[in-house]
Amino acid sequence: MESARAGKHIFCEKPIDLDIPTIQNALKIVEECNVKLMVGFNRRFDSNFRKIKQMVLEGKIGEPHILKITSRDPAPPPAEYVAVSGGMFLDMTIHDFDMARFIVGSEVEEIFVAASVMVDPKIGEAGDVDTALITLRFENGAMGVIDNSRKAVYGYDQRVEIFGSKGMIKVDNNAPDNHSYYGNDGVHASLPLNFFMDRYIEAYANEIKEFCSAILNDDPISVGGMDGLRAVMIGLAAKKSVQENRPIKISEILEVHN
Amino acid sequence: MESARAGKHIFCEKPIDLDIPTIQNALKIVEECNVKLMVGFNRRFDSNFRKIKQMVLEGKIGEPHILKITSRDPAPPPAEYVAVSGGMFLDMTIHDFDMARFIVGSEVEEIFVAASVMVDPKIGEAGDVDTALITLRFENGAMGVIDNSRKAVYGYDQRVEIFGSKGMIKVDNNAPDNHSYYGNDGVHASLPLNFFMDRYIEAYANEIKEFCSAILNDDPISVGGMDGLRAVMIGLAAKKSVQENRPIKISEILEVHN
Amino acid sequence: MESARAGKHIFCEKPIDLDIPTIQNALKIVEECNVKLMVGFNRRFDSNFRKIKQMVLEGKIGEPHILKITSRDPAPPPAEYVAVSGGMFLDMTIHDFDMARFIVGSEVEEIFVAASVMVDPKIGEAGDVDTALITLRFENGAMGVIDNSRKAVYGYDQRVEIFGSKGMIKVDNNAPDNHSYYGNDGVHASLPLNFFMDRYIEAYANEIKEFCSAILNDDPISVGGMDGLRAVMIGLAAKKSVQENRPIKISEILEVHN
Amino acid sequence: MESARAGKHIFCEKPIDLDIPTIQNALKIVEECNVKLMVGFNRRFDSNFRKIKQMVLEGKIGEPHILKITSRDPAPPPAEYVAVSGGMFLDMTIHDFDMARFIVGSEVEEIFVAASVMVDPKIGEAGDVDTALITLRFENGAMGVIDNSRKAVYGYDQRVEIFGSKGMIKVDNNAPDNHSYYGNDGVHASLPLNFFMDRYIEAYANEIKEFCSAILNDDPISVGGMDGLRAVMIGLAAKKSVQENRPIKISEILEVHN
Repeated sequence: MESARAGKHIFCEKPIDLDIPTIQNALKIVEECNVKLMVGFNRRFDSNFRKIKQMVLEGKIGEPHILKITSRDPAPPPAEYVAVSGGMFLDMTIHDFDMARFIVGSEVEEIFVAASVMVDPKIGEAGDVDTALITLRFENGAMGVIDNSRKAVYGYDQRVEIFGSKGMIKVDNNAPDNHSYYGNDGVHASLPLNFFMDRYIEAYANEIKEFCSAILNDDPISVGGMDGLRAVMIGLAAKKSVQENRPIKISEILEVHN
Repeated sequence: MESARAGKHIFCEKPIDLDIPTIQNALKIVEECNVKLMVGFNRRFDSNFRKIKQMVLEGKIGEPHILKITSRDPAPPPAEYVAVSGGMFLDMTIHDFDMARFIVGSEVEEIFVAASVMVDPKIGEAGDVDTALITLRFENGAMGVIDNSRKAVYGYDQRVEIFGSKGMIKVDNNAPDNHSYYGNDGVHASLPLNFFMDRYIEAYANEIKEFCSAILNDDPISVGGMDGLRAVMIGLAAKKSVQENRPIKISEILEVHN
Repeated sequence: MESARAGKHIFCEKPIDLDIPTIQNALKIVEECNVKLMVGFNRRFDSNFRKIKQMVLEGKIGEPHILKITSRDPAPPPAEYVAVSGGMFLDMTIHDFDMARFIVGSEVEEIFVAASVMVDPKIGEAGDVDTALITLRFENGAMGVIDNSRKAVYGYDQRVEIFGSKGMIKVDNNAPDNHSYYGNDGVHASLPLNFFMDRYIEAYANEIKEFCSAILNDDPISVGGMDGLRAVMIGLAAKKSVQENRPIKISEILEVHN
Repeated sequence: MESARAGKHIFCEKPIDLDIPTIQNALKIVEECNVKLMVGFNRRFDSNFRKIKQMVLEGKIGEPHILKITSRDPAPPPAEYVAVSGGMFLDMTIHDFDMARFIVGSEVEEIFVAASVMVDPKIGEAGDVDTALITLRFENGAMGVIDNSRKAVYGYDQRVEIFGSKGMIKVDNNAPDNHSYYGNDGVHASLPLNFFMDRYIEAYANEIKEFCSAILNDDPISVGGMDGLRAVMIGLAAKKSVQENRPIKISEILEVHN
């Protein structure tokens, strides 16, 4: 808000905030001050996800029916982090919520989450979960599933698949090299790139490039404040779904605050 | 029941019946008559699924956390079939329910289903759905997701993935050949084998071999009446979850009948 | 020859013989006696190789430029076998020579072989080689390379690739299942099917089916005596190329015998 | 030579020269002037090839037996370029000759080349070839094959495979993304990165990084003048082999100049 009032364009990491009225207020000020705001959903700038998005826009899969996102981290954060981050849905899955909206091209209407603590009991003690299966319903009728884990021993697992009336597209993990080794005990290949700094290095560069270019040329920003707000709303609905073990409409989250 | 009373061993296609008391009664008679009963969950005899099962038993993934089953048919059945088959969950997903129990090695405790009619409106008119995302909770704490469609334009899509504390295993579709063609417009490969008679031909042979061998040698059957019953119970719970848009405990299905 | 004279149709394993005049004489008798002769080049009936052949015929690669065949056995035969088999080129590579003619659809004109003994010194003592890189020139201008080893510790390696003016096609090995296991030390998959009885089981069945069907319906045989003869001629030229370390024209082999 | 005399460290693109005495003289001056010389064999700095090299050094394949390099350009250069470049073996294959020495870790002793003009008759008129199959014999007993084409319609084809007594390693092409699209007419994926500026962008960066770092820290250079000389010698032997249609010892090339 201070940046906006100072007339500075803003690049903001996710989440904008954990409190919806605060976000709404910030977005209002950004709008009034007429500065640009870009939210750091870097994965939209990854080659694989851009390709899938572009093919969906081209109609290659026809009408989208089922979206599948696999998103697993190589190692859990310390429980102290979880206590202040807003929890897994707001510090980690928030990227997947944004990816879901980005790929399907429609808003999430309802969410159901089955979650538990399977990786680290301390995360449970801090009031959070570390493993989740998330069902999404979109306004255009499509459905989606996100599966999350705080700990995949084989590294950072980041895959997307979308299925529709005319076909299916999937993108896989990236690895540091594509060798196959055939030994007497099997065929072996490299693990996926281990974490976000390696996997998304090109995406980060593309993201900052877009931000700078948009400011220099006064172009529109592709990932704005409303994208930041929507992802937080879905994250808060996810938490509510776990607590109440029932599907939650995203509109319920807004009602709370109005 | 007539077979059992006649002292004949029985190979029974799924579902045993759509009514739980009828199944329970049939199983009781089978037991009393001391005949063998094998239920036709042929996919347990597929090389890929057997491999994944064996590796789970060997502890390769550690404790199972997330199971993912993709199961999509190449083309929907006529709406008339759906009206008498018990619906998608009982004529098609029933195989996936069995596969879920088989791979995870634990019983399903609760189910939540998001489903809709996206393929053929006539299926909706017949009171059924053709597209579904199914969340399972197992007694051992694991979770699972099954995604179903009655129509994948690229053929029969049958994949399984299981993720756990020590690793992940996935198996992919089988194709009629493994060629890659590099032309000036992309890399191209063969589609998956189109439907169950091609994809599971080896599984059917293995299945019948086990049935015959069990009878000839008086060996135990690996897929028995309780497996048939359990899959129907999950299927009925799936229908209830769609109707009520809430997670259903499998035990609720039994209570109805007791 | 006795079969032919007895009016019996003949299925003959390769090589027909190691001596060219003997083969020529046998083929003459077969022709005179008007019986069918099929030579056991079973690999022509494998799904992968049939696919590649069909796509070449359809013009998918345009004009063929470079053929590559990888053909490695899982374990060497005893040196005693090598001493009587005619050597690697006539007991093993002969299949690859036939595959080369089959895929390219043109006759081999010249051959150059670099070979050595790297697997088992006893094979060298028996006067043979166990590792070879073979360059082929075809009458239609295409070129080909076959690489052979008597011992691939990871199993039976049977791959083909063809490159032409409009594209490239390759086929890979077959495995018993297609699982991928992601553990903390890498991604692992099953080795190729270990040897010919597993890899070519379907090819053997297709081959015998064609033979029987051709006899029952008096249809032409797709792999005949001339195919058997040609492969032996190339094999003998391969041996000569190793001995003299120079490219050998296949016609040189015939001149010797005329 | 002027750079060396001026005391400047040198980064030199391949080939150093097309004339061996000129190269020998230049290397002598470089040595006398005590400057560093790095030759631009950028592919040594590619992640895939570095991985294969490292695994060979670690003994993963045991003793190397057969090396296979596929190296095909997306489009031929103009015939005018070929006339002054030294021809395909010295402007293009020279990279593969260096890669062969790098991966096998031994010097090339003998070469045999089958080559022809299949892509562009003007290249033939300019006295060069555009398609080749090259057999290499190394001092350590290993053998290798390189296949080249000036025109692969599907893009830049850069693969390496090495087979030895304990296993096999292969590396494949890199693509701009790893999507798979399943439509009703097949499975489709992206073509390989089209040419060297895309495929080897990371390799070029690593290469220059090593050069700068070596100069700043006075470290040894990993790709020096002798590497540049050796590759030219093999290229000249390749040309001689095509002209005389026989295997050429690399030592024959040196004798000519001594």
